[in-house]
Amino acid sequence: MKVIETVAEMKKARKNLPEPVGLVPTMGFLHDGHIELVRRARAESKTVVVSIFVNPTQFLPNEDFATYPRDIPRDLAMLENARTDIVFMPSVQEMYPEGFNTWVEVKKVTDRLEGACRPGHFRGVATVVNKLFNIVQPAKAYFGQKDAQQCVVVKKMVADLDMNLEIVIIPTVREPDGLAMSSRNVYLNPQERRAAVVLSRALFQAQSQWKKGEKDAEKLRKEMIALIRREPLASIDYVSIADPVTLDELGAVKPGAIASLAVRIGKTRLIDNVIME
Amino acid sequence: MKVIETVAEMKKARKNLPEPVGLVPTMGFLHDGHIELVRRARAESKTVVVSIFVNPTQFLPNEDFATYPRDIPRDLAMLENARTDIVFMPSVQEMYPEGFNTWVEVKKVTDRLEGACRPGHFRGVATVVNKLFNIVQPAKAYFGQKDAQQCVVVKKMVADLDMNLEIVIIPTVREPDGLAMSSRNVYLNPQERRAAVVLSRALFQAQSQWKKGEKDAEKLRKEMIALIRREPLASIDYVSIADPVTLDELGAVKPGAIASLAVRIGKTRLIDNVIME
Repeated sequence: MKVIETVAEMKKARKNLPEPVGLVPTMGFLHDGHIELVRRARAESKTVVVSIFVNPTQFLPNEDFATYPRDIPRDLAMLENARTDIVFMPSVQEMYPEGFNTWVEVKKVTDRLEGACRPGHFRGVATVVNKLFNIVQPAKAYFGQKDAQQCVVVKKMVADLDMNLEIVIIPTVREPDGLAMSSRNVYLNPQERRAAVVLSRALFQAQSQWKKGEKDAEKLRKEMIALIRREPLASIDYVSIADPVTLDELGAVKPGAIASLAVRIGKTRLIDNVIME
Repeated sequence: MKVIETVAEMKKARKNLPEPVGLVPTMGFLHDGHIELVRRARAESKTVVVSIFVNPTQFLPNEDFATYPRDIPRDLAMLENARTDIVFMPSVQEMYPEGFNTWVEVKKVTDRLEGACRPGHFRGVATVVNKLFNIVQPAKAYFGQKDAQQCVVVKKMVADLDMNLEIVIIPTVREPDGLAMSSRNVYLNPQERRAAVVLSRALFQAQSQWKKGEKDAEKLRKEMIALIRREPLASIDYVSIADPVTLDELGAVKPGAIASLAVRIGKTRLIDNVIME
C-alpha cells in the first residue's frame, strides 16, 4: 500500500495504475461503513484508491472542523488490511492552495434538508469531490447511503457536468442496536449513545408502517416525530420523506422514497435515512 | 470529417480516438481567428475536435443569443478545409437537459471587466467549458487571446479543479486595419466598421507608449479614453490595464500586463486587448 500526499504525485502515479480504478473518498477516522465501501471497490477494481481528507470547505464556521476526529495510523492499518492499493491524503494547502477560488454548485437538490441546515456545505462537498475525481480519474467512486443527500448531489453533479465515472452507493452499515455507523458517534457519551438509537428506530418504524400499506407521508413523518420527542436528549432538525431524485417532499410515499432525519443528541448532530423498499 | 450531435455519441467515439486529442471550443460563425486555433491544434494533435455550440447560459437575458450569427454549412466547409477530424455540435437540449442545475463558478477574476458588465456570463462559460472538457477529454484546448478574461477564467478553473489538460492561448488575428476578428463584427454597418478601428488603435497606442518607457497605467488609460472619445460612434464600457493572472487593475505597468477594453460602436459591443510585451 502506497501513501501519497501531493496532487502532483497522485496525478503522476495515476498514469500507470492498472484499470479500472475504484475510488473511496473519506474524511478518515474510518469505521466498518467505510471498509464496506473499500470491500466493494476491491471486488470491482484492479486498483483501489482511498482518499482521506477532512475537507474544510464543507464545514460551516460554527461546525466541528477543528475537532473532527482523526487517527491516521489506525486508518492506514485498516486500509492495509482491506487491501487498499493507494491512500491519497493531501494537506489542506495541497487541495486549496493560496488564491483557490473555483466552486461547483449543485442547485435545487441542495436547497432542503442538510443543505438548508448547513448552507454552503454541499458547495464544499461538490467542489472537493469534483477535484478528487479529476485527480484520481476513477471508473467508479463509492459512497455510503448514510449521507443520502450527498449521494443525490454527487450523482447530479456527475450527470450535469458529463463526468466520466459511475457513482456506486453502498447500504448503510449499522451497530447491533441499529445506530448508523458514523465517525461522529465518538462524540456521544454513554447516555447519549443509548439515546441515539432513536434515529434508526423512528426510520424503521416508518419503513415498517409503509410496508404494511401506509402511504400517507405526513402521517409517517408525524409518528417519527412523536417517537423522537419521547427521547429527552433528542432535538429534531428535520424529519423528511422525499423523492429520491429531486428530494422534493412527498405527500404520498412511493417505492424508492427516502425517509431521512437529522437529530441532535446533546450537542452531537446525527443524520440517518432508510429507503422505502 | 465526422459530425457528432449527441453527448453519448461523442463520449463513445472518444474511446477510440488517436491520442493526443486537441479541442477547439467555438460558438461557430467561424473566422480566421478560429481557423488559426484549428491550425495550431492540427499541428499538435493526432485528433482535432472542434465544438460548435452557441451556449445560451453565457448570454444575459438582454443579449444577442437569439440573433447570434450562425452559418453551419460554411463553418463545416471551413473546418473540413482545415483538416478537422470531428465536429461536435450538440443541441441546447443535449447540453442542458431538463432539470440541469450544476454550475461552475470561478470567483474574483470574474468580478471585474467583462464579469462586471455581463454578470453571470463567466458562470455560463466555465460551466459549458467544464462540460466540453469532460465530454471530449482533450490533452490540450485552444482559446483565442481576444477573449482575454475568458482565457484567465478557463485557466483558473483548470488549475483549481485539477483538470487534466493544458490550455493553449493563441494570439488575436486582426483585419488589415487592426480590428480584432470577431463573429460579432458582422453586426457593424460600413460606417461603424470604419469607426471600430478605434479599439485596436487605442490599444496599440498604449502598447507603443509603454515600449517607449511610460509605466504610469493611469496615464495610459486616460490617453486611450481620450482617443476613443474622439470617435462619435464609440461609447466606452471600460478601459483597463490589469495584472495578467489576478486581473487586478495596475498602477504601474509591468511586462505581461493586459491592456483591455470594451466599447460599443453603435449598438454593437466589441472587446479587444493587447499584452504589454
